[in-house]
Amino acid sequence: MTAARPDPAHPSESRHPSESPNPPGPPELRITAVTVTPVAFHEPPLLNAVGVHEPYALRAVVEVATDQGLTGLGETTADEGHLDRLHTAAAAVTGLPVHALGRLRARVAAALGGRTGSDRHGLTGPITAASMVDRVFSPLEVACLDIQGRAAGRPVSDLLGGRVRDAVPYSAYLFHKWAGHPGGPPDDWGEAVDTAGILAQARRLVDTYGFTALKLKGGVRPPHEEVETVLALHEAFPGLPLRLDPNAAWTVDTALDTARRLEGVLEYLEDPTPGLDGMAEVAGGTAIPLATNMCVTAFEHLPLAVARRSARIVLADHHYWGGLHRSRLLAGICDTFGLGLSMHSNAHLGISLAAMTHLAAASPELTHACDTHWPWRSEDVIEPGALTLADGAVRVPTGPGLGVELDRDALARLHEQYLTCGLRTRDDTGYRRRTDPSYRRRIPRW
Amino acid sequence: MTAARPDPAHPSESRHPSESPNPPGPPELRITAVTVTPVAFHEPPLLNAVGVHEPYALRAVVEVATDQGLTGLGETTADEGHLDRLHTAAAAVTGLPVHALGRLRARVAAALGGRTGSDRHGLTGPITAASMVDRVFSPLEVACLDIQGRAAGRPVSDLLGGRVRDAVPYSAYLFHKWAGHPGGPPDDWGEAVDTAGILAQARRLVDTYGFTALKLKGGVRPPHEEVETVLALHEAFPGLPLRLDPNAAWTVDTALDTARRLEGVLEYLEDPTPGLDGMAEVAGGTAIPLATNMCVTAFEHLPLAVARRSARIVLADHHYWGGLHRSRLLAGICDTFGLGLSMHSNAHLGISLAAMTHLAAASPELTHACDTHWPWRSEDVIEPGALTLADGAVRVPTGPGLGVELDRDALARLHEQYLTCGLRTRDDTGYRRRTDPSYRRRIPRW
Ligand SMILES: [Mg+2]
Ligand SMILES: [Mg+2]
Repeated sequence: MTAARPDPAHPSESRHPSESPNPPGPPELRITAVTVTPVAFHEPPLLNAVGVHEPYALRAVVEVATDQGLTGLGETTADEGHLDRLHTAAAAVTGLPVHALGRLRARVAAALGGRTGSDRHGLTGPITAASMVDRVFSPLEVACLDIQGRAAGRPVSDLLGGRVRDAVPYSAYLFHKWAGHPGGPPDDWGEAVDTAGILAQARRLVDTYGFTALKLKGGVRPPHEEVETVLALHEAFPGLPLRLDPNAAWTVDTALDTARRLEGVLEYLEDPTPGLDGMAEVAGGTAIPLATNMCVTAFEHLPLAVARRSARIVLADHHYWGGLHRSRLLAGICDTFGLGLSMHSNAHLGISLAAMTHLAAASPELTHACDTHWPWRSEDVIEPGALTLADGAVRVPTGPGLGVELDRDALARLHEQYLTCGLRTRDDTGYRRRTDPSYRRRIPRW
Repeated sequence: MTAARPDPAHPSESRHPSESPNPPGPPELRITAVTVTPVAFHEPPLLNAVGVHEPYALRAVVEVATDQGLTGLGETTADEGHLDRLHTAAAAVTGLPVHALGRLRARVAAALGGRTGSDRHGLTGPITAASMVDRVFSPLEVACLDIQGRAAGRPVSDLLGGRVRDAVPYSAYLFHKWAGHPGGPPDDWGEAVDTAGILAQARRLVDTYGFTALKLKGGVRPPHEEVETVLALHEAFPGLPLRLDPNAAWTVDTALDTARRLEGVLEYLEDPTPGLDGMAEVAGGTAIPLATNMCVTAFEHLPLAVARRSARIVLADHHYWGGLHRSRLLAGICDTFGLGLSMHSNAHLGISLAAMTHLAAASPELTHACDTHWPWRSEDVIEPGALTLADGAVRVPTGPGLGVELDRDALARLHEQYLTCGLRTRDDTGYRRRTDPSYRRRIPRW
């Protein structure tokens, strides 16, 4: 090629950008430290398809500090392997600006070096390398958005396109449960192992929080019994949308048979059976929309799920899907490909509820009330008052960032609880086997 | 249902959120006025599959003003119908906060009331109601992001996830062209109606701007002649990725035949033939990846395009795809569904180049250098110096917002030019027919 020569039509444009760099921008907010604090909080003995919740749920509080004094909060699970990966990621992102989310994620990916995994508790399945990155990156991204919002004086929802609703609807999450933990006293909620118990629990949740949608965690009792309970809920709460989630505890035949008896009753049926193919078979045989947070848990699952029509509704969860920006991407994909959108929940604390609420508030694509375990917790790490569950919804915080503040005393207390409780990895199956050694995890079971 | 009663486990949570509203957030930045200024700028007589560029390209500069003095810039086409829709949308969004992008888009959609349309110039095809909303909303969204960035002291790329590259690569956009406009003197670029002319043009563009990728606008000469030109470019610029875009001027058979002769030469072949089905047929018969900005121009096109494998690369264009956030969504969809991503360009000015550069900078999914008409313009509405095309790339502005400022004198001059030039709607075919009345728009032509 010939030597560079200036273009007479564009005298201001030079060949070498290094000779005329753009003026430097405003100072970056750079990450100086990431602190990961595992905590444990009390949970009732809630039953599901693979066992029962242990006395404590484990969460990790992620604090991101910056060179300008601003800090941000994230929250995620605290299983041992995940904690280990969080520490790896924390080291990798230190020094980067909090606005450089694309580069942050790339750094996390490089640091994890293609690690894959499994959820171990059995409720979601194998985890691909990309999905592992998304899970580890998620609390860091949320904390960075918290900082971005604080720096700009805007709520996190404003960083995601702005809220399209002032309050986010959540569903009442009904659980079969024991009266109390084995060897302990009955808890305040009491036993719910039959229709009467679930009805009473639903009544209390609806009366206390004003829920306008109900979800029953199923896969615990034989399908025909859970059908009876759902029909009783339908009768007791007419007009309230109703969902059933057996966590893939049923075969295709059982799912089809059960679905037939619940047509016209269920808003959606969640993960009746395992796998994209099984789900597609059930979907083809019932008018009830199928929803999933088990066979579609990562972006890699979407092409096949769309092609096979395995589910009509995806339950987003920013903890799995790489944070809030990437959950907005999931929402847009659902909208584009004709899928509905709801939201999944694991046991969580207030930082996660704030993030979930900002995300749902900024998602016009949301077609259903979100799930939350929130009413089941009795402790938290955030200062009280910022989040209120009333009229079945949480008002979207309008202050800067996530709108929640750490309660340092509570954090210290729940961290101490983590240190002393002895739990390091969620194991619903093992916990159930301690009282019933004959119990086995079987997916599907019926 | 029974009356509300407080939950003893959660004394801080009351039933009625209206009784304990969250404290009000920081003041909103509300839109007080939207000004739409049509401008016309000189263009050379560039040839394409449907005719030739008229002496002026029409653009609209969109200025959004807020109650706190901050203003933001957007840019879009200025065809008459589009201007009319912009005015409708401008009235609809006045009063809303600049962060409420979801609500802004909903307002625009309501104001447009389901209007559909057609591109008229024949290069993209019918426009659905949702796509119409995206096209009208786009410059408003960009201007709001400009304001958000200025308010936060962050470049727009930081609002989109942060830049993953400091400079955005663009391709040299080669055009067949006449020596000058009919009846006028030859322009500085001279004639390019054969291989020698295109080679000289490519040499000048590469030497002046350091381009590292080449794109030839085809569909102008018979396919076998354009093949010769591409082979000559391949020989003259070894190692530089090379694309050919005949704008659907070929039948499926012609496209397959032409593609066979260019395998191993082209980086991608852009819109060889019309429609998702025709594209899929060509895609199935050649190893050259097909790209498109004609059969996939709206979110509604994606499911079928994915199912039929009509193209392997989508050319994003934030002017069509609803602004920068929704273009990020398109990028994420491409990544998720295994599609490559490049960027389309119409004739544009500096505001659009800034927006394109921030978007591409914040898109890790970008797999190819972007298109731009930038070197073909000799006038602009922005103050010079902010954007430099060198080493085949534009450095990403790092100042607040888009990083460009209006040159009010230039804006007034180009608006005056709009008023006096007489053009109101792009019509490449009509312009060509003025010198050759026998010319007809025929897609496909060969
Ligand atoms: Mg579930
Ligand atoms: Mg094209």
